Amino acid sequence: MKVVVVAGIPGSGSTTVLKGALVDLDYVHVNYGDVMLEIAKSKDLVTERDQMRKLSPDMQKEVQREAAQSIRKRALENNIIVDTHCTIKTPLGFLPGLPPWVLEELKPDQFVLIEADGDEILLRRITDTTRTRDMEKLDDINLHQQMNRSVSMAYAALTGATVKIIQNHDDQLDETVEEMKNTL
Amino acid sequence: MKVVVVAGIPGSGSTTVLKGALVDLDYVHVNYGDVMLEIAKSKDLVTERDQMRKLSPDMQKEVQREAAQSIRKRALENNIIVDTHCTIKTPLGFLPGLPPWVLEELKPDQFVLIEADGDEILLRRITDTTRTRDMEKLDDINLHQQMNRSVSMAYAALTGATVKIIQNHDDQLDETVEEMKNTL
Amino acid sequence: MKVVVVAGIPGSGSTTVLKGALVDLDYVHVNYGDVMLEIAKSKDLVTERDQMRKLSPDMQKEVQREAAQSIRKRALENNIIVDTHCTIKTPLGFLPGLPPWVLEELKPDQFVLIEADGDEILLRRITDTTRTRDMEKLDDINLHQQMNRSVSMAYAALTGATVKIIQNHDDQLDETVEEMKNTL
Repeated sequence: MKVVVVAGIPGSGSTTVLKGALVDLDYVHVNYGDVMLEIAKSKDLVTERDQMRKLSPDMQKEVQREAAQSIRKRALENNIIVDTHCTIKTPLGFLPGLPPWVLEELKPDQFVLIEADGDEILLRRITDTTRTRDMEKLDDINLHQQMNRSVSMAYAALTGATVKIIQNHDDQLDETVEEMKNTL
Repeated sequence: MKVVVVAGIPGSGSTTVLKGALVDLDYVHVNYGDVMLEIAKSKDLVTERDQMRKLSPDMQKEVQREAAQSIRKRALENNIIVDTHCTIKTPLGFLPGLPPWVLEELKPDQFVLIEADGDEILLRRITDTTRTRDMEKLDDINLHQQMNRSVSMAYAALTGATVKIIQNHDDQLDETVEEMKNTL
Repeated sequence: MKVVVVAGIPGSGSTTVLKGALVDLDYVHVNYGDVMLEIAKSKDLVTERDQMRKLSPDMQKEVQREAAQSIRKRALENNIIVDTHCTIKTPLGFLPGLPPWVLEELKPDQFVLIEADGDEILLRRITDTTRTRDMEKLDDINLHQQMNRSVSMAYAALTGATVKIIQNHDDQLDETVEEMKNTL
C-alpha cells in the first residue's frame, strides 16, 4: 500500500480537492497535525491542540517522528493520504513540514502539490471569512509556492518519491478533482 | 577519475551537445538505461528493453542500484559521462532519476543540465518526426525544466557535486558544444 | 544556542545587513572561510589564504569538515552566525557551500538568504570599485539567486532548519536590518 502526501498553501484549496477526489477512492485520509495531537494526548503531554506549540522542540520532534511511524504502520493495510504542509511559514522562515526524522519514518511514495495562481489565492483568502488569516502580499504567496516546489523536489531526491503538481484554478474544481483521482 | 551526469528534457538537445563535445575529449559515454538493460539481461530478468517496465518496483530499484555501482567502478579507469534524466515525467508526477540508492553508489562529481527556451523545445519536438512524443504545453515544458533545476540542487546538496546549467539555443550549437567542453 | 547561516551572492549586501543587525544582538559572528584558514594554518597545511585553493580536494574537504565541527562547538556557549555561501559559482558549475560533510557537523538551525533585485546587484557590482569582480549578466545573477533558493530548501530538507529570505533593496537598509534582527 502507498503513502501519498498532499500539500498546498492556505487558499490553494488542497483540502477541497482532496475531499472531492476521495469520494470515489479507497484511501484513508489522515491529517498530520491530528495524528500528532493524538500521540501527544496519549502520552499525557497535552490535553488540547493549543498546548502543542508549547512543547519543547525536542518533544515536538519526537511527537512528529512517532506520528510518521504510526501513519506508515497504517499503510500496511490501507492506502494512505496524508494532509500536511511542505513548508510552514514562520517568523524564522520556511520550516520544512517533512524534516529528515519524519521522512525516514513516513517513507512517502508520492507528493501531490495543489497550487493556484497567486492572485486566485489572494482573493480566496480575502473572501474566506470563516478563518482569520494573516494577509500576505502576492510576492509572498508566489514565493511560498516556489519554495514548496523546491523542497518537494528535495524530499523526492531523499526518498525516490514522485512529485505531482496540480493546478486548482477558479471554476475548474471538477477538472482538478478528476486530475487528482487520476494521479492517485 | 570523475563521473559527470548530463541531463536535459526531450528536445533540449542534450545528446547532440554531448556527442559534439565528446569528439575531442577523453570520456567514456554511458547511457544509464542501457547499463540497466545489460544488468537485467545478465541476470536473466529480461530479454529485451520493453520488458524492463514490467519488473517489480523492488527489482527495478535493485537493477538501478547495480547500474550505478557498475558505472562508478568504470570510473576507476576512465572519466565517465552518464547520459540520464534528472526527473522522468510520469502520470504519478516527476520521478527523480537519481534516487538515494543511485546517488549513494554513483557518487557523481558534476551535474550538467542542458536547457533551451521553452518555445525552442516545443518547436524542436513538433518538427522532430523521428520520434513520437507526447505533446506538452509550454507551461509544462518550463515546469519540467524548473523541477530539474531544483532536484539537481538537491542532488548537489546530497553529494557535494557541482551543477552547471548550459543553454542550448537554436543556431548556436558550436558555442554550446564549446561551453560543454570547457565545463568537462 | 543556535547556529544561523547567513548567505547572499556578491552584491546582495549580506555582510552589510549582518553587521547592522549584530550591533544590537548577542551573536558571535564567524566567517566560514576564516575558520577554514585558521584550521589549515594550525595543521601547517598553509601559511596564507591563497594557498587554500591548492590543497588537494580531500584535504579541502577535511578542513571544511573540521571548520563545521569547530563552529558547532562554539555554539555550546554562544549563538553563532556563520557568514558563508549557499553555492559558489565555479567554472564547473554551482558548488554547494554546505555539502553533506559540512551540514552533518554544523547542524544549522536557520538559514537566512539576503537577496536583492538582479538589476540592483548588477549596479552595485559595477559601482563597487573596492573589489574586482567578474561581471555577470542579469540572467546569470538571477539564476544564481534561484539556485541558492533551491539549494537552501534542500539544506532545510536535510536538517529541518528554517529558511528565511530577506530582500535588501536600495535605500532601505534600515528596514532590512530591522527584518534581520527580528529573524534572529
